[in-house]
Amino acid sequence: MLTLHGYYRSSASFRVRIALNLKGLEVAHISHHLRRNEQRAPEFLALNPQGLVPALQTDDGQVLLQSMAIIEYLDETHPSPALLPGDAAGRARVRALADLIACDIHPIDNLRVLRYLRTEMGQDEDAIQRWYNHWIAEGFAALEPLLASGPSGAFCHGDAPGLADICLVPQVVNSQNYKLDLSPFPTISRIYEACLALPAFAQAMPGQQPDAE
Amino acid sequence: MLTLHGYYRSSASFRVRIALNLKGLEVAHISHHLRRNEQRAPEFLALNPQGLVPALQTDDGQVLLQSMAIIEYLDETHPSPALLPGDAAGRARVRALADLIACDIHPIDNLRVLRYLRTEMGQDEDAIQRWYNHWIAEGFAALEPLLASGPSGAFCHGDAPGLADICLVPQVVNSQNYKLDLSPFPTISRIYEACLALPAFAQAMPGQQPDAE
Repeated sequence: MLTLHGYYRSSASFRVRIALNLKGLEVAHISHHLRRNEQRAPEFLALNPQGLVPALQTDDGQVLLQSMAIIEYLDETHPSPALLPGDAAGRARVRALADLIACDIHPIDNLRVLRYLRTEMGQDEDAIQRWYNHWIAEGFAALEPLLASGPSGAFCHGDAPGLADICLVPQVVNSQNYKLDLSPFPTISRIYEACLALPAFAQAMPGQQPDAE
Repeated sequence: MLTLHGYYRSSASFRVRIALNLKGLEVAHISHHLRRNEQRAPEFLALNPQGLVPALQTDDGQVLLQSMAIIEYLDETHPSPALLPGDAAGRARVRALADLIACDIHPIDNLRVLRYLRTEMGQDEDAIQRWYNHWIAEGFAALEPLLASGPSGAFCHGDAPGLADICLVPQVVNSQNYKLDLSPFPTISRIYEACLALPAFAQAMPGQQPDAE
């Protein structure tokens, strides 16, 4: 069986949970409490020197790192249902939508970055909130027209959920941390609701995890 | 012919330039001066609402966004030489190495983030330098053992350069902006030198571009 090293509040772990659910794959979960720095324990650093979750261990002991690389691996080794379109142009579009979130929004708002702003730069909670929402709003402002002008359908790229939806949903959940106003982003909101109607997404939500507090 | 919207100092454009060179593809270059905010001009925002470079226009007028998605597209549409290994586990490793840089180092040190730190958070140049080098050093500290324990060969994954090398070289170039000490990272330094010995990498260097100042 696969083993996912994750944490209920980790957005990148959340992405992998959705992908595993969409693929119908069974997985054992090992939780690493990020706010207690459990991901920096020597046993976990031996698996992943970056000290970040998620990491996915396969049956043969391979350790896969980085959520986007893990999801591409799951899609290649368990092709159905596909998380990427069948054509190269479609795949490029979906990967670009996903990377807009995974590269240009999420890492800048990550826990370790917020910690640095607090401890090394002495920023208060108001400044952290403005920072956090600034990067989501800037990213969503680009994502919204890209999604609205795409192929019709309930999801980011037509009528089936895929890699872009897998990135979008955790980012929308994060946008609720500091109550970002989502009214300028009707397409994002519509797709988010469509995803949450699917058990694969709903059951991957942070509050549904056994390590949720 | 392909048209690359880029900027000589943009690391993400640099990645795409290397990939195009490795594939031997001809491309027209359109430069958008980032420090003069040319990437926020209405004509470019119509192509890419995110207002970031690179963007790649294809012969049939398609606009591809996000460097990592563009490079995957180039690899799918021009398979030789391959930028990813032939096996799923190898591809997962190379994509993870690439994403460690493309998600967890580069975006946090991006120009727009440094601007926010200066203008919205009032940080001085010393603080910016510490921030900049902190994220590179933290990422490289994880990358170094991951690279050192990988398949033998001159590059990140064996004897041919690929997606991870394409991300590594621009990040090492960035590490020179604030003179990060690279002596703790001998494997990274060795691979960087091996890449620069190849014309595909050397000719993609920022200083070699027609828009270099």
